[in-house]
Amino acid sequence: MSENKNTKPSLHTVLTPQLLDLYEIKDSVVVIIDVFRATSTIATALYNGATKVIPVDSPALCIEVGKQTGGITAGERDGKIIPGLSYGNSPSEYPRSFIENKTLVITTTNGTKLLHMALKQGAKNIITGSFPNFSKVVEFLKSQNAPVILGCSGWKNRFNIEDVLFAGAIIEQVKAHFEIHCDSSFMANQLYMQQKDHLTDYIKTVTHWHRLAAYGLEEDMLYCISRDTAPSLPIFKEDALINQS
Amino acid sequence: MSENKNTKPSLHTVLTPQLLDLYEIKDSVVVIIDVFRATSTIATALYNGATKVIPVDSPALCIEVGKQTGGITAGERDGKIIPGLSYGNSPSEYPRSFIENKTLVITTTNGTKLLHMALKQGAKNIITGSFPNFSKVVEFLKSQNAPVILGCSGWKNRFNIEDVLFAGAIIEQVKAHFEIHCDSSFMANQLYMQQKDHLTDYIKTVTHWHRLAAYGLEEDMLYCISRDTAPSLPIFKEDALINQS
Repeated sequence: MSENKNTKPSLHTVLTPQLLDLYEIKDSVVVIIDVFRATSTIATALYNGATKVIPVDSPALCIEVGKQTGGITAGERDGKIIPGLSYGNSPSEYPRSFIENKTLVITTTNGTKLLHMALKQGAKNIITGSFPNFSKVVEFLKSQNAPVILGCSGWKNRFNIEDVLFAGAIIEQVKAHFEIHCDSSFMANQLYMQQKDHLTDYIKTVTHWHRLAAYGLEEDMLYCISRDTAPSLPIFKEDALINQS
Repeated sequence: MSENKNTKPSLHTVLTPQLLDLYEIKDSVVVIIDVFRATSTIATALYNGATKVIPVDSPALCIEVGKQTGGITAGERDGKIIPGLSYGNSPSEYPRSFIENKTLVITTTNGTKLLHMALKQGAKNIITGSFPNFSKVVEFLKSQNAPVILGCSGWKNRFNIEDVLFAGAIIEQVKAHFEIHCDSSFMANQLYMQQKDHLTDYIKTVTHWHRLAAYGLEEDMLYCISRDTAPSLPIFKEDALINQS
């Protein structure tokens, strides 16, 4: 073998869960990205001492798993706590004084779907990524020497800019360590580089901002684009995300 | 009704055929985009006087329809003419001296799939778009007063930058006429605005450029990003694309 042979692992960005089946997931590190707000809230709860976070894809399952584990049940629809659950999806609801040493069972449709797909397809590791735990994700990806899939949760399978911006920010930090031959990754990185110096203004133009701002969630969203405010590394082990950092 | 009521039709960008089912296609104008090279070749053949272009999704069907219609059969795999067909996918193969008054039966996987999906879902009109017939597409979309779907063909259902750049260029010209609440469209437009002044250099960085450059098709691709060199309007009627301009 020539020593010039490129042995860097690959990196791909998956723009929505509906495209995941086009990529080789087996033995990859998969980063689940749901900036507004699931993965930002997960990073925050774990950073603040939650024992674990169990992501589930329906309110019924959330209630059931909450009973089994004695965990806090959380989930929102249309900006309100779902009937039968106890808390919402806001990272601000999970300070250390409340969540430390507790289990959080959180309902999230887009991100949980992606996580279960990645699990089924034999991912090597599944972590969650958000701006609040940005640098932890970067460190982890650099340390793994494995192919990476940046999985954007989107919204109802549609493409969402905020998730792709996060992917682009990650790519900017790790690209020297990977072989990238993926238009989605190029686009994500270019969009991030174009907008990074005015992210706060830019984020107010995307569709999800408008959807959540209608519920008065502007402050939540500004937190969700703040970097390294909750430096945890949520990694999926057995049935839950735990903090590996 | 208030005269302030917004009555502009919607515009959405579909990043790959695999996402088309997320959008409302019925009664929309659908633009099939396959910059490298199917829709560029279709625009060119029709501009140069082809009677019609019949897009088919397999070589076998291409041969069959070629026999039925007496048309020219065309299609490539890996940069070479497919055995059993007579010509390739290059726009340069279809000058007026050759194609005038003839029927072209062309094999194109990604674009044809999208076209048939749009047809099945009851699109109002289906046209094909490419830089060579850019302004004709803009004019048509402005004239229709109907919702628009910019359908990117991509490559094997993956996202392709060159198709999205074309969508972004179209959006730049028509956005005042539509209500746009679509992150894919925002992203497409931003990427185009970022790259438009150095499109020739930029296009050489995308994955499809590398794939086709390996077959010596650089000149073809530069033609495919040249604006208004083949000002036709390919519109699907009955079973074929004809020039409506």
